[in-house]
Amino acid sequence: MEKNKKLVEQITSMEVDFAQWYTDVVKKAELADYASVRGCMVIRPYGYAIWENIQKNLDDAFKATGHENVYMPMLIPESLLQKEKDHVAGFAPEVAWVTHGGDEKLAERLCIRPTSETLFCEHFAHIVESYKDLPKLYNHWCSVVRWEKTTRPFLRSLEFLWQEGHTVHATAQEAIDETIQMLNIYADICENVLAIPVVKGRKTDKEKFSGAEATYTIESLMHDGKALQCGTSHYFGDGFAKAFGIQFTNKEGKLQYVHETSWGITTRLIGALIMVHGDDNGLVLPPRIAPTQLMIVPVAMHKAGVIEKAMELKEKLAKIVRVKIDISDKMPGWKFSEYEMKGVPLRLEIGPKDIEQNQVVLVRRDTREKMFVSIDELETKIPEVLEDIQKSLLVRARVAQQEKTYEAQSLDEMKEILDSKTGFVKAMWCGSLECEEKVKEVAGASSRCIPFDGDVTSKTCACCGKEAKHFVYWGKAY
Amino acid sequence: MEKNKKLVEQITSMEVDFAQWYTDVVKKAELADYASVRGCMVIRPYGYAIWENIQKNLDDAFKATGHENVYMPMLIPESLLQKEKDHVAGFAPEVAWVTHGGDEKLAERLCIRPTSETLFCEHFAHIVESYKDLPKLYNHWCSVVRWEKTTRPFLRSLEFLWQEGHTVHATAQEAIDETIQMLNIYADICENVLAIPVVKGRKTDKEKFSGAEATYTIESLMHDGKALQCGTSHYFGDGFAKAFGIQFTNKEGKLQYVHETSWGITTRLIGALIMVHGDDNGLVLPPRIAPTQLMIVPVAMHKAGVIEKAMELKEKLAKIVRVKIDISDKMPGWKFSEYEMKGVPLRLEIGPKDIEQNQVVLVRRDTREKMFVSIDELETKIPEVLEDIQKSLLVRARVAQQEKTYEAQSLDEMKEILDSKTGFVKAMWCGSLECEEKVKEVAGASSRCIPFDGDVTSKTCACCGKEAKHFVYWGKAY
Repeated sequence: MEKNKKLVEQITSMEVDFAQWYTDVVKKAELADYASVRGCMVIRPYGYAIWENIQKNLDDAFKATGHENVYMPMLIPESLLQKEKDHVAGFAPEVAWVTHGGDEKLAERLCIRPTSETLFCEHFAHIVESYKDLPKLYNHWCSVVRWEKTTRPFLRSLEFLWQEGHTVHATAQEAIDETIQMLNIYADICENVLAIPVVKGRKTDKEKFSGAEATYTIESLMHDGKALQCGTSHYFGDGFAKAFGIQFTNKEGKLQYVHETSWGITTRLIGALIMVHGDDNGLVLPPRIAPTQLMIVPVAMHKAGVIEKAMELKEKLAKIVRVKIDISDKMPGWKFSEYEMKGVPLRLEIGPKDIEQNQVVLVRRDTREKMFVSIDELETKIPEVLEDIQKSLLVRARVAQQEKTYEAQSLDEMKEILDSKTGFVKAMWCGSLECEEKVKEVAGASSRCIPFDGDVTSKTCACCGKEAKHFVYWGKAY
Repeated sequence: MEKNKKLVEQITSMEVDFAQWYTDVVKKAELADYASVRGCMVIRPYGYAIWENIQKNLDDAFKATGHENVYMPMLIPESLLQKEKDHVAGFAPEVAWVTHGGDEKLAERLCIRPTSETLFCEHFAHIVESYKDLPKLYNHWCSVVRWEKTTRPFLRSLEFLWQEGHTVHATAQEAIDETIQMLNIYADICENVLAIPVVKGRKTDKEKFSGAEATYTIESLMHDGKALQCGTSHYFGDGFAKAFGIQFTNKEGKLQYVHETSWGITTRLIGALIMVHGDDNGLVLPPRIAPTQLMIVPVAMHKAGVIEKAMELKEKLAKIVRVKIDISDKMPGWKFSEYEMKGVPLRLEIGPKDIEQNQVVLVRRDTREKMFVSIDELETKIPEVLEDIQKSLLVRARVAQQEKTYEAQSLDEMKEILDSKTGFVKAMWCGSLECEEKVKEVAGASSRCIPFDGDVTSKTCACCGKEAKHFVYWGKAY
């Protein structure tokens, strides 16, 4: 037997060890590989193709709403990072410092960008002069570095890929509208492309971004009941503008500070895709984001005409779906497992008997349902089935989220729920930091968000019993 | 008058001060802005849109030839960089070193990637086992950092954007073929998309990439007669494979080392676009790469029906070209200069009199020729004119390159030419490092390449008079 023959090996069951299952899927589906620097990863072709699809959807939505892409430097001088005090306090402890260029020690150390607010602010101060220059609606695709202690591929890594939007506006209202618009774009792409249901809302002051007046978020629930922050959108008011001197002359000829926003989504979404849709056979990808939507596996390839017919189908179907064919000399069973592991939404099997009967077998990845379909009907049937998979995955994820969403009236109840289950706990909150910290300490949950469409389930705070101000989703988070 | 009213200001003439002209164009055409770290730049929306078009052309060509995109980490441990001795000798003096993560001093310092051969090699060693795993045809879009002493936007900067392709193959021949294939793709895009004529050839040993067996290059000539290396493609043989232990089991069951290539093109191409096509009115962009191919400027906008008609034309033409319209309250003359500065290939002017006569005025950026064109003919005429501009720019650049290409039979002649002119000097060479260094010392020119289609103009080396081995393009380079 060949020395290194690759087999589709069993992965850990998600019920046995969810964390190990996750790592197995990342590795076996060939999404990422470890690199020699702790916490950094190589994003492999299949993982990167998913990211390219996420990028394409976001980039189109950004451009359709008037945003332009720019590129900001990767290095930030320490003095620039320090210009806004809340911001530097939040990020300085977790940046990587460059102290030498070649053999030369630098006069001032530089950090690798953990986020680019300070760079954008410096640039805006250069280019914004008049109200005619506003708004500036910029976006930046790049990687950032944060010196995290505990890391996991896609979910939390020293370096990750993301986009960060940064905009400046003449009025506070325009900036707030922008913040909400971008959050809605994120939510729309999560739900309608990634089939990941999200709760839209606002972060508490404790959980908001360093330097922001308000942080809005979309939160989703993973298969294990832990919450994942999928994207955030920040309203800065004129705090950064004052720290960096970003002023413009308004229509009346007076100098004013701009109002600013930033918003970002990261490769973490690939982690969400794995943990929301995956199963014990591996990844399950929604068709709209899948690099390959249909995989053709010819059966009994040595029989006359099989490969030819399969190739002919591939050519024809390439016009309507992202299709690949596997005519390698591996066994069909190996191929079935391999493309299930990779989460390809639909498999098409075709063998000599099928050809005789002018049919193929379609197998759905989500339900593993088999269908015999006439070759003449493929061009209508395949898009229909893909559409159905897309919708079913969202419905299934919504049901799972609802099943793992609980309600509590008291801290004891929160603790009781979270001691035995993992999920969202909805409870009222008075708005004090003390209660927020107590919930964390006693029930082990942080506030995920104050949802836009929250109910009022009680008039009193579940923690202290005083008057409730907010309806909050609490949970254990990644 | 408004405090900061923006005017299209005169730029320095290229004949007066070419370097200052270049800097003026970068700034006034809003391609880039300086950042607070020396030698780093902000790529502004217009500059980034050009880069996105370059990326799209390259990425499509890479994918059409079977390449896949991946992402490699930005950080390389010092010990990994040191694994291939020629490579580390070439790059170690010019890397940025990360020594601290947060408050913690690192046990081993990390460099920001100056190029990613070492990271790819480490990964290939993980994933390549059998001949069935070969070839791996990977590409990586990212930014890299090199601690350059003298920097200029796009041409030479501390950080720049690029793509780096990295491939491993079972045989040397296959790797060599890949190296040449990618060089041809680069040359094709330079000539047919960017309208930049290039000389294809091989670098001398002195000029080749650190760690390569052979480096192939495309070289072009700028308006000032200086040469610019536009892209390189390297054949590594099995040198890196041996240093990193990248082996595979061949069909006969024996362990063998892979053969490797890498190839890259950078944001430097934006510098080439400026310096090959630009003139004293600013940038001149070839239509195939221009973010905006047609700019509509309505004249006498306050007259009834002008804006409406202009908008109607914009909607109609958007189906066939990348078109924008400027209906801001700036003067038409300001707008004409602005879009000439930005190198928009074609301008469409429309006013009340034009509308009466069912016509518009088209103005070419390259020749500034004015044409009156019937509105009914726009959809055929505009693509024709754009195509003609595209071709004319390439022809014009080719003629300019030929006019600045000289031939010399001796070192004295080389010196005489290069003392009074700047351009390519074609001369025969014996192949010795001594002569190459002497040409540099005496005539001030480095070897640019040994062209694939070089003539034999003499049997003796222009420098030492011994037997000539190679026909070489020499020149002063950026």
